[in-house]
Amino acid sequence: MVNATARRCPTIALAIGDPAGVSPELTAKVVAQEDVRAAARLIVIGDKRVFDAGAATAGTATPFPVIGAADAIPAGDGPVFVDLAHLDPASIERGVASRAGGASALANYRHALLRVARGDAQAVCFTPFNKQAMRMADASYDDEIGFTAGVLGTTGPATEFNILEGLWNARVTSHVPMADMPKLLTVDAIVGALELTSSALRVAGFNPPRIAVAALNPHAGDGGNFGREEIDVIAPAVAKARARGLPADGPFPADTVFVRAKRGDYDAVLTMYHDQGQIAMKLMGFDRGVTVLGGFPFPICTPAHGTAYDIAGRGIANTGATFAAVKLAASMALRARARAAA
Amino acid sequence: MVNATARRCPTIALAIGDPAGVSPELTAKVVAQEDVRAAARLIVIGDKRVFDAGAATAGTATPFPVIGAADAIPAGDGPVFVDLAHLDPASIERGVASRAGGASALANYRHALLRVARGDAQAVCFTPFNKQAMRMADASYDDEIGFTAGVLGTTGPATEFNILEGLWNARVTSHVPMADMPKLLTVDAIVGALELTSSALRVAGFNPPRIAVAALNPHAGDGGNFGREEIDVIAPAVAKARARGLPADGPFPADTVFVRAKRGDYDAVLTMYHDQGQIAMKLMGFDRGVTVLGGFPFPICTPAHGTAYDIAGRGIANTGATFAAVKLAASMALRARARAAA
Repeated sequence: MVNATARRCPTIALAIGDPAGVSPELTAKVVAQEDVRAAARLIVIGDKRVFDAGAATAGTATPFPVIGAADAIPAGDGPVFVDLAHLDPASIERGVASRAGGASALANYRHALLRVARGDAQAVCFTPFNKQAMRMADASYDDEIGFTAGVLGTTGPATEFNILEGLWNARVTSHVPMADMPKLLTVDAIVGALELTSSALRVAGFNPPRIAVAALNPHAGDGGNFGREEIDVIAPAVAKARARGLPADGPFPADTVFVRAKRGDYDAVLTMYHDQGQIAMKLMGFDRGVTVLGGFPFPICTPAHGTAYDIAGRGIANTGATFAAVKLAASMALRARARAAA
Repeated sequence: MVNATARRCPTIALAIGDPAGVSPELTAKVVAQEDVRAAARLIVIGDKRVFDAGAATAGTATPFPVIGAADAIPAGDGPVFVDLAHLDPASIERGVASRAGGASALANYRHALLRVARGDAQAVCFTPFNKQAMRMADASYDDEIGFTAGVLGTTGPATEFNILEGLWNARVTSHVPMADMPKLLTVDAIVGALELTSSALRVAGFNPPRIAVAALNPHAGDGGNFGREEIDVIAPAVAKARARGLPADGPFPADTVFVRAKRGDYDAVLTMYHDQGQIAMKLMGFDRGVTVLGGFPFPICTPAHGTAYDIAGRGIANTGATFAAVKLAASMALRARARAAA
């Protein structure tokens, strides 16, 4: 039997996301794509009936072995389906967030994480989740990062990266009120984020990566006239990171840092808060981009766009971002394997 | 004698900005442009020697009457130069901010404002200022808005609008530390900003204007999970503004509000803080745009870009944004006159 870890082409556990949106048809389309098969072996995880309904919408047919949750992955190069047999698609109303839909997506994702944890695959991808549905299913669910840490039992710092056409965005704070945000910006938090970012970028092939750090205040505080965080916290954090060999520049005014990065001066921008990066990334077309979870023992990638409830079931969902997520996960998995072997 | 206010084409007082950057050559180029002359009669204000040096750089020659600071504007359609005779260009080092340069720019701008106040022109434009130089010249100088209010003796709310290709951006707070910003967001402040914005947009020809209001917190607070300002302050302010007949929608998540506006859903975005708008506008190419000061009795417009010290004296400064500023000032002045006559 050929062990997946021995093959050059990495194996990726692909969890079907929210069943009420485009995730089932997107999953079916991506598995059927020839260039996806060339990039990775896919272990698709979900309910086979949900997948088949997606394939019917997508107009694709993928003959592949179907195994159970407890089964080993069969030898071979082609895709495999792990049927969790937990959701009848007839019970799901298209375009409506539901507890059952959220529970199925969480179960698929959990299974994908555990498949990688036990060596059956080297990376995880998932088609879009619906946060509302996931909260219905699990009131303690906050975001993918917390859920992933819970499943894997990791306790270290973790973060989310947004990637569009080779430009990465990481952030020091994320889903917190703006009024609370400035006091969360500490030297340690910023240096920690730079460490995570640098490490993820290296795995993604940037050696060495070039990271621009955004300021917090307008005009980067204008020498202390409009806030002192640049002087008291961010510049010292950049200096400390550089002293540790981390490739960071800044702080740069937030309203020009993406202009610099976009023209090619940097591979990544570390922003201080959620919208500082998201305003720029979404304007540049981040819905075509990829989200990567960083700080976990293996790559986890997903398309940046949402469940697109408005176009679900019409077969018109664009696979570009999902394919980009699979390709990025595959290339990161290959590089991580090469590093581990070295 | 033909009174400028009686002519169909408005008269604009054009103050020469910082003398160490591209402002002198930009002023000379713009005055020499045939389409600028068709849009407005220009009263250029500055030191004639500085202008002539700019014209030499620009390779332009504009024969026009030169008058003194106390002289009346002569009859006619063509441009006029008001020579304040206060700055020998030989005393200014190109590319270096100086007290003398800042003082001259402030004097030019003050004279332009007073020319309009006494009826010699209907709008003010100025080529780029250098804030550092202006602070050297006047330690109390904070920004153009405070200076303008001081010269004109106005005490009402005033603000800065940024305009790029027909899309306006206004903000509730501006040059304040991010840590202090959330508590400055009050219902009155937001409604006041919507009133200023709506009024300026009407003068600029949007009838009725369509204004999108940005949220403060990530995901617009996610129903109160990441901050309550949307629920407690911004939504009530939008409701109050709408009850007064002001055309406002929102609050919209900050990371999608510019995507909506850019695709044509809105004429203006009201942002809660400086970078929320500036990140988007600069990424869209706002350096090609125009800044308008609102809340004053007449239009005041300037190109959005800076003094470009790095290319000063090379004759390559692009006049596009300055021309756009003159054209916008002219069209706003025409509409204001029509309103006053009605």
